[in-house]
Amino acid sequence: MEKNEVLVFGSVAYDCIETVYAKRDYILGGSASYASLACSYFADTHMAGVVGKDFKQSDIQRLKNRNIDLSGLQIDNSGDTFFWRGKYFEDFNKRETLDVKINVFEHYKPQLPESLSTCQCVMLGNINPEHQLAVLEKIKSPKFVLVDTMDLWINIAKQDLLKLIPKADLFILNDSESAELTGCDNIFKAADEMKKLGAKNVLIKKGEHGSVLFHKDGMFIAPAYPVSELRDPTGAGDSYAGALIGKMAGDDDFSFKSMKNAMLYAAAVASLTVEDFSCDKLEKSGFAEVEKRTAFLREITTV
Amino acid sequence: MEKNEVLVFGSVAYDCIETVYAKRDYILGGSASYASLACSYFADTHMAGVVGKDFKQSDIQRLKNRNIDLSGLQIDNSGDTFFWRGKYFEDFNKRETLDVKINVFEHYKPQLPESLSTCQCVMLGNINPEHQLAVLEKIKSPKFVLVDTMDLWINIAKQDLLKLIPKADLFILNDSESAELTGCDNIFKAADEMKKLGAKNVLIKKGEHGSVLFHKDGMFIAPAYPVSELRDPTGAGDSYAGALIGKMAGDDDFSFKSMKNAMLYAAAVASLTVEDFSCDKLEKSGFAEVEKRTAFLREITTV
Repeated sequence: MEKNEVLVFGSVAYDCIETVYAKRDYILGGSASYASLACSYFADTHMAGVVGKDFKQSDIQRLKNRNIDLSGLQIDNSGDTFFWRGKYFEDFNKRETLDVKINVFEHYKPQLPESLSTCQCVMLGNINPEHQLAVLEKIKSPKFVLVDTMDLWINIAKQDLLKLIPKADLFILNDSESAELTGCDNIFKAADEMKKLGAKNVLIKKGEHGSVLFHKDGMFIAPAYPVSELRDPTGAGDSYAGALIGKMAGDDDFSFKSMKNAMLYAAAVASLTVEDFSCDKLEKSGFAEVEKRTAFLREITTV
Repeated sequence: MEKNEVLVFGSVAYDCIETVYAKRDYILGGSASYASLACSYFADTHMAGVVGKDFKQSDIQRLKNRNIDLSGLQIDNSGDTFFWRGKYFEDFNKRETLDVKINVFEHYKPQLPESLSTCQCVMLGNINPEHQLAVLEKIKSPKFVLVDTMDLWINIAKQDLLKLIPKADLFILNDSESAELTGCDNIFKAADEMKKLGAKNVLIKKGEHGSVLFHKDGMFIAPAYPVSELRDPTGAGDSYAGALIGKMAGDDDFSFKSMKNAMLYAAAVASLTVEDFSCDKLEKSGFAEVEKRTAFLREITTV
């Protein structure tokens, strides 16, 4: 079994988040943060992205505490870290962006230390597809590439996204995004359309309703882990994707069966994220809790 | 193994249905029609309810063709069959009632032939809970009672519904109805609340997102069968419930494990219903198609 190194690239952010229950300011966020922490449960994780002069040493430390290598995390002292202020409504599926500041991402040119170019697994977390493409080009011979995205890029950077999709071994997005990208409300039709766009395998996330994998070797439906106290859904999808690639990389198995198994782990990990703000519960819960939740998901889907 | 007889009680109706794709007038509908046809795939089925002077001989015949006993179906020549006119929007989860005529249900007093009082299994399909209670009283010693309902009865007949819930071995409703009944948007909390109302076992239907069973012995999550050409969702839940009780009755097994297995069959049968108007595809598809769809559901939920 080869030991796989996972490069997790994406946004690193400070978020101000308001829900009907609470409000938190300047908490660690961004797709790369959530995905790296999730991935680190299963495999050696290298995080790449950019932060600004305001990025706290304590946040560097919490990532390092999870053995995440930060050699690919650029620090740009000319500006501040990417910033997002958002509000969730009583129905957590609805959110409003109150403020967003690109900050150091504005003039960002992804650079990677040479040592990371040999990573076997690459997660291109939600960020501008132009940056995702630039990072992917720097990886010599990736064994497995996961691409995540969001509605914003479908709307403003569709051409770059279309270049990226065929390069992914797994393309992940949520149900409303799959409808936006393909014009098909029905996820089964949308998946067919995405295969026509060159996607090898597609995974559609449905939030509390679980996720559906359209793999070249078959389909798989996994539930979400039952969460009765949702605190903050930010980062759920990023954690899901990070855990998914991490589990497969850790097992050095990228088969259909392994991907299905990883989906249960990913659902378990994502549930930790949403049970508290930021990465607080995600980083603290420990592997035993992940195993316990995964076992429960297996139990409640077995006749 | 005892041979169980299933009594299916509920509404029998003529529906006029409009979707964005098509429009059909005076087609067979009602919870008892859908549920009886679904149940008849698995067990001896007796249908009870009332129809009016306009009820067509051809509709009597299509039910009889599926070996459904109609000795409990009253014909009231003083009026017409229950009538519903509805319109589904592009998002099939949204519908509008354009017209409803209670007709023969207005002065209906459920009567059952003595021969049906020994039915071992009872499905009380969606209808006024007062009628559901009246029918249940006529059954001497039911082995298994399934109760289905809808938002209307939660709003206008909650007291009767609350009397009925503890009498059910399985109480079925959909996610929005569970929220209305309990005040809890989260289905896991809603299920806890329904257990406090005396429900032994609760099944929450989530349409295209599948269903969740909260059984006293555990939880089970089943997907919906992937439907890419939805024609008319009317009767999906009724077919689901009819197939569920029919499968358990046919196997003479009402255990948690048997209920989980029956949920996959029920999802398969419900998918037939929604792929055409009225009961058209439900009645014609044949058992081999049901088995095939159930096997597929098993496959796509197995790692």
